[in-house]
Amino acid sequence: MEFTARAIAFIRNERSEAIDDDWSEVVSTIELARDVPDEALEGLADFSHVEVIFLADWADDVPPGPWHRHAQGNSRLPDVGVFAQRNKDRPNRLLLSTVRVESVETRALVVRGLDGIDGTPVLDIKPVYRWSRPEGDVRAPSWSDELDAR
Amino acid sequence: MEFTARAIAFIRNERSEAIDDDWSEVVSTIELARDVPDEALEGLADFSHVEVIFLADWADDVPPGPWHRHAQGNSRLPDVGVFAQRNKDRPNRLLLSTVRVESVETRALVVRGLDGIDGTPVLDIKPVYRWSRPEGDVRAPSWSDELDAR
Repeated sequence: MEFTARAIAFIRNERSEAIDDDWSEVVSTIELARDVPDEALEGLADFSHVEVIFLADWADDVPPGPWHRHAQGNSRLPDVGVFAQRNKDRPNRLLLSTVRVESVETRALVVRGLDGIDGTPVLDIKPVYRWSRPEGDVRAPSWSDELDAR
Repeated sequence: MEFTARAIAFIRNERSEAIDDDWSEVVSTIELARDVPDEALEGLADFSHVEVIFLADWADDVPPGPWHRHAQGNSRLPDVGVFAQRNKDRPNRLLLSTVRVESVETRALVVRGLDGIDGTPVLDIKPVYRWSRPEGDVRAPSWSDELDAR
């Protein structure tokens, strides 16, 4: 079962390389695609955070990439399945980040902490409702804490 | 800019209708697609929550749907842009839920609180790391709290 998606916006920032850390202070402008009207952003200024789904078009799809690997390609970290890690090389190459809204501008949303490089296609933007966060305590293995390089 | 995605899994549960509330206790089995090996799920049992990106193939795309509307089609709620609400009718019809991991089974992940109906294609599964949650306080308009029907 296949389906087609299209870019509704593009990431604009000063990063042109997909490095693994230090994204937390990067400010990005999410610029609407030509055929998306400004009114699609109306109301976003009332939210502190959004979830951004974007396409890692610079990454490797799976397959042909492997279905499991060491997290971040680091042999010190466990070898786990692609769905137990957030690495960019994955089926459909969909990435997802929860980021801070800085401002809503004409035809653009300015955010902080988005770990996508300049020119990356954005497929969706969703506001974070108070109840759309994880319920209860979050449990995660300690190796994933080590990745906290943002 | 268009790209093609494919289902890596399908949602199996007892819900066949896209109603707007009371999903929090719904247990769903996310069944891997035939060409996805079991090892892709390895390591997921160590996480309490995952983010699931799925395709609302029963919903209306935008366009031809409107770029702004009353949240949940409820005229008591504000008329905001599609990117300031999480409604299913949206560009690319991508939905995203953060859900509890119940168990990892053979060729399947069992979760609680996933608001997709039986048969829905899943495009990605990502573990929630402690640091992939929103940083700091979440601010959201009170109308979005009212939608807390899960």
